[in-house]
Amino acid sequence: MFEFAVHSTQGNARTGTLQTPHGALQTPVFAPVGTQATVKAVAPRELHELGATLVLSNTYHLYLRPGDALIAQLGGLHRFMGWDGPMLTDSGGFQVFSLGDLRKIDDDGVTFRSHLDGSTHRFTPEKSIQIQHNLGADIIMAFDECPPPLDRATVERATRRTHDWALRCRDEQARSGDMARQALFGIVQGGVFPDLRAQSAAFLTDLDLPGYAIGGLAVGETKAQMLTTLDQVMPLMPTDKPRYLMGVGSPEDLINGVARGIDIFDCVLPTRLARHGAALTRRGRLNMGTLAYATDSAPLEAGCPCYGCTHFSRAYLRHLLKASEILGYQLLSLHNLTLLTTLMREMRAAIMDGTFAAYAADFLMFYRASTKEAESPPA
Amino acid sequence: MFEFAVHSTQGNARTGTLQTPHGALQTPVFAPVGTQATVKAVAPRELHELGATLVLSNTYHLYLRPGDALIAQLGGLHRFMGWDGPMLTDSGGFQVFSLGDLRKIDDDGVTFRSHLDGSTHRFTPEKSIQIQHNLGADIIMAFDECPPPLDRATVERATRRTHDWALRCRDEQARSGDMARQALFGIVQGGVFPDLRAQSAAFLTDLDLPGYAIGGLAVGETKAQMLTTLDQVMPLMPTDKPRYLMGVGSPEDLINGVARGIDIFDCVLPTRLARHGAALTRRGRLNMGTLAYATDSAPLEAGCPCYGCTHFSRAYLRHLLKASEILGYQLLSLHNLTLLTTLMREMRAAIMDGTFAAYAADFLMFYRASTKEAESPPA
Repeated sequence: MFEFAVHSTQGNARTGTLQTPHGALQTPVFAPVGTQATVKAVAPRELHELGATLVLSNTYHLYLRPGDALIAQLGGLHRFMGWDGPMLTDSGGFQVFSLGDLRKIDDDGVTFRSHLDGSTHRFTPEKSIQIQHNLGADIIMAFDECPPPLDRATVERATRRTHDWALRCRDEQARSGDMARQALFGIVQGGVFPDLRAQSAAFLTDLDLPGYAIGGLAVGETKAQMLTTLDQVMPLMPTDKPRYLMGVGSPEDLINGVARGIDIFDCVLPTRLARHGAALTRRGRLNMGTLAYATDSAPLEAGCPCYGCTHFSRAYLRHLLKASEILGYQLLSLHNLTLLTTLMREMRAAIMDGTFAAYAADFLMFYRASTKEAESPPA
Repeated sequence: MFEFAVHSTQGNARTGTLQTPHGALQTPVFAPVGTQATVKAVAPRELHELGATLVLSNTYHLYLRPGDALIAQLGGLHRFMGWDGPMLTDSGGFQVFSLGDLRKIDDDGVTFRSHLDGSTHRFTPEKSIQIQHNLGADIIMAFDECPPPLDRATVERATRRTHDWALRCRDEQARSGDMARQALFGIVQGGVFPDLRAQSAAFLTDLDLPGYAIGGLAVGETKAQMLTTLDQVMPLMPTDKPRYLMGVGSPEDLINGVARGIDIFDCVLPTRLARHGAALTRRGRLNMGTLAYATDSAPLEAGCPCYGCTHFSRAYLRHLLKASEILGYQLLSLHNLTLLTTLMREMRAAIMDGTFAAYAADFLMFYRASTKEAESPPA
């Protein structure tokens, strides 16, 4: 289980297959985020329809509500949320660090207060792994510290902790887990500092884990800094393991990430934008609530195969948004996710055909990126 | 067009077919309500899937937003909201009367202020018909006054106005409408007063309209008063025209209405309850947010064919509701509508088989009605 085979490469871009207990995952792949055991406003059958193959869910949120023990008792997260394909859970690390004043970090773990009711809890590397065992995702993540990427002293300390905690996660997985059922991925930290990233990549590679993530990006640095860091760290990552860029998911970031050899992405961006009335298209973002679309009988994006684009006009979408109708968020979520899963499928095909460089250049020529994307934090 | 054929009868219950420009409608039928050009949280393809065949939309809401002229310009309401089956619009009468202090009624019409921005507008019978022409539903309703049903003087005046306005609606439809494309239904008023109901039924029957509604029920009277009124007025309604009980839609009201010869129902109840976390079942209502369901691995309702009941547990639904996840409202809306469309299909089959009386008795024996249902106002 969890064999990873690379099929085609073009430059640093590559296609592959990761075997999981819930099926073979074609990479590169984008994972929609189901923070609270549901991709917001999208049902599992719709995820299948739009081509999603991997779903991420959040350890912090599910631990607090409804509780990982309850989910285990009900047969695990796959069964609970009705998703029968490959699944990934994060470690809860990023979420608890994001709590700011509500959490306190030490070398052993993190004490934090629930954003729901203020109750006090503690995550350690062992606890994170135990929760992720209860949830039962195919891919689980090592508990890490994800600091703002620009302050060297903070990043240095966090990277050291991330390494200590990766060892403890590996040991806990060996002690209480099932390596045939769940693959533990390590997370390379180090902010924007090449030497720290190199140390982190070397340390984690030595652990010979079944996969590796690049953490600590898309959390405050510029797009240029993110790409520079990727350019620097990707050659240091094992080529025979899947490589996962956490929390990244704008169209241009997916293109740029695949071009640098990333295999897995996740991001709340497509569904979060939808709830704010924004559509992702091949030409850039559209704010569907604006008056410009009030009388527009065209589909949101011509040629898009999603349910919304094949059945409704921009004018109707705009009406739904102005009237705060749930269907508007449903349709925009379907559309935004469809664009990203379609991009991934097109990129896989282009890599296999040897046309990826042209595909990427062509896409980026027409896509008008928003400068705000690098600052969109994960959930 | 709009031929109505009665097929089978059992007691007063009957099955029939109403021909419309968007297909033949099998009756008795329940119409989900799409107030703002969408059945809340349910897409048209899901309406087809769950067996809905007729959808109601609201003249008042669509006149204000996005505007009936815009909808006409975009090809009409069917195309705008992506519903290709039979459709019905109300007259706006009930909504403007429900505005209370924001509206002023005179014998010519109603001046009212928008609940959206406070702007002043005026509906007359002619205006209501013109708006409904722009929307383009298959069945349109005469503009009526729908007063609280218990105050005789008010009801008497409202019934007189309703008759005057029905004449004006008929004339406006003849002048500017298309009788082959839209069927104008008259609305029998008269509150809980048998003589007023009898006068109203007689007056409207003389107009020989293609269908008739019973208005002014489910707006403040008790269930017993509603049924007594139906018992009294139904024998006075033409048997060769479809008969529509407006704003009624709890399971027991559907059974009791069909038993009295009603052919068409509509109600916001199933989707409104869903947004409040309540499920309709054959045993009564369930509040899915309660702790009792937190660990319940059973489906919401065993045997229900809806997407939610065939894929998820009560525990999952309860979690979605506690977490305010949109999917929870989607799944409950699908379920509640599925129950009502299934009931209607079962009743049609039972009438054709001659087993309706037993079917109705059996259903009502197991169904624990909520005493609150009669007080649920339409949207």
